[in-house]
Amino acid sequence: MALSEFQLIKEYFTTIASKRSDVVLGVGDDCALLQLPAGKELAVTVDTLVEGVHFLASDDPEAIGHKALAVNLSDLAAMGAEPAWVTLALTLPEIDSSWLQQFSRGFLSLAEQYGIQLVGGDTTQGPRSITVTAHGLVESGKALRRDTAQPDDLIYLTGTIGDAAVALLLQSGSYLPQRGSEQLMQRLQRPTPRIQIGRSLVDIAHAAIDISDGVLADLGHICAQSGVAAEINLHQIPLSSEVREYLEKTADWATILKGGDDYELCFTLPPGREDALTDMGCEVTCIGRAISGSGIRCLQEDGGELSISGDGYEHFRQ
Amino acid sequence: MALSEFQLIKEYFTTIASKRSDVVLGVGDDCALLQLPAGKELAVTVDTLVEGVHFLASDDPEAIGHKALAVNLSDLAAMGAEPAWVTLALTLPEIDSSWLQQFSRGFLSLAEQYGIQLVGGDTTQGPRSITVTAHGLVESGKALRRDTAQPDDLIYLTGTIGDAAVALLLQSGSYLPQRGSEQLMQRLQRPTPRIQIGRSLVDIAHAAIDISDGVLADLGHICAQSGVAAEINLHQIPLSSEVREYLEKTADWATILKGGDDYELCFTLPPGREDALTDMGCEVTCIGRAISGSGIRCLQEDGGELSISGDGYEHFRQ
Repeated sequence: MALSEFQLIKEYFTTIASKRSDVVLGVGDDCALLQLPAGKELAVTVDTLVEGVHFLASDDPEAIGHKALAVNLSDLAAMGAEPAWVTLALTLPEIDSSWLQQFSRGFLSLAEQYGIQLVGGDTTQGPRSITVTAHGLVESGKALRRDTAQPDDLIYLTGTIGDAAVALLLQSGSYLPQRGSEQLMQRLQRPTPRIQIGRSLVDIAHAAIDISDGVLADLGHICAQSGVAAEINLHQIPLSSEVREYLEKTADWATILKGGDDYELCFTLPPGREDALTDMGCEVTCIGRAISGSGIRCLQEDGGELSISGDGYEHFRQ
Repeated sequence: MALSEFQLIKEYFTTIASKRSDVVLGVGDDCALLQLPAGKELAVTVDTLVEGVHFLASDDPEAIGHKALAVNLSDLAAMGAEPAWVTLALTLPEIDSSWLQQFSRGFLSLAEQYGIQLVGGDTTQGPRSITVTAHGLVESGKALRRDTAQPDDLIYLTGTIGDAAVALLLQSGSYLPQRGSEQLMQRLQRPTPRIQIGRSLVDIAHAAIDISDGVLADLGHICAQSGVAAEINLHQIPLSSEVREYLEKTADWATILKGGDDYELCFTLPPGREDALTDMGCEVTCIGRAISGSGIRCLQEDGGELSISGDGYEHFRQ
């Protein structure tokens, strides 16, 4: 028996999906048709998760579905965009009802939470991978970019960083925390896209990026594209108690600053605008400032500089 | 040495890309930012090509690049949309400069031809696959849909069908044509998206679809979604001389009507509008008509009915 692409998408992905009034036509024709609002720009981002690289075959399918959408929503958050529509390209070795049910539950419940509608998809047979293209809307000319930081801007992080990196060590068996294993794994497998704060920063921040490849790599993109340098103070970096425990045992700052998968926002704020950072919906912490020049200096509490080679996760190692 | 995602995309995909004035921000930030025109709807489609399923490891990378974009442009054509922006998610086992150069040449020269700009991408390591999300613009309320055919509509095809299906037999060694091997393989590997005629049909046709899964399957979607039946006349089906030769030898209509990868358009026209079909930029042929009821009847020249089981290419066989 053959289960067609249409039946597949319909069965698992259209039943409980959000319905937006700007979707003229969703899944089921050659294209989705979407109404465009005046005064907005369209923000588009695409990310692929590959089995064995970004997730394991043994991972909870519901968490994979959550993460596949969350990493894209995180890119929308970093632009200050409001999530609107999403397409899903699923490559699967076979039709596994249980896997699909759990995956779609994770994907769609996050979509529901942010009012984003699944409007198109493709399913193909092959090694398991997931490509999501997310579309958001942002007031024209107001999007948060990487190339607009200025010297003297304050540098902020949302939430805490390093949890996902420590969770990866935990998962591979090379680190065993005294407590908080569950919290660490949640941070790796179910990141929270910082949509609300991204929207709030639209009229406040100078530049923003989401931290997917490690804070040094991603802040490095802001610096390089804005033509500024950064000085960050390690003792101000926001850390969970689990990551503090890891650092107390290992002093391994490289893992914390270079590990990927945080999905927090890093943004820069013109000096004197600190009072605007209220009701952000999550913790924000100032970790340093932008200065003239290039590169990132990591300062320790005694004023000494920590030297860390390389700058983050890269997708190909040769 | 690690070649980062940014360098990779930059090196191969941004140098010769088209520049559209509505692209505020292209590759290189968390999202692309796109200006939205008034009075238009956004048409969005996504398709994945997987190595070993949709193309072979030994296929010409330039042809793979062409086809990865062409199949998506074909979906835009079927909606009557004008191509605008595209994202590319590339999963590759390793960085192969020669492969990437040829692939990007095929992809970008087709993009250039239709004035579509590559605005975002993701590169990941894994089994080779390509996911393209294409965005087009169409006058609000004018898009060509699948669910708007009416009884008495005339049914048309662009170009010829069956060439790609016969090329697949040729490629697998199970059919050897007397001549025209080159033309058949071109039709399989370098399909022509019917953008111009799709645009022209916006004010003329009732319904349209692109033929990716075989004419019976795709016309079947129009019938099912519009609530009509179709009668098609086999002797009116437009065929190349290569496919005529194949049918003379084999009488195998099933391969021609159920084979995928044609990327022609099938559309329905209200009776009496035949005169509007001038200057379409490619051949169009009337193959039958829509009637009340459901399903598709294939009539032979003597009036007898040809029975063909199943209706086209399905992506999963169990």
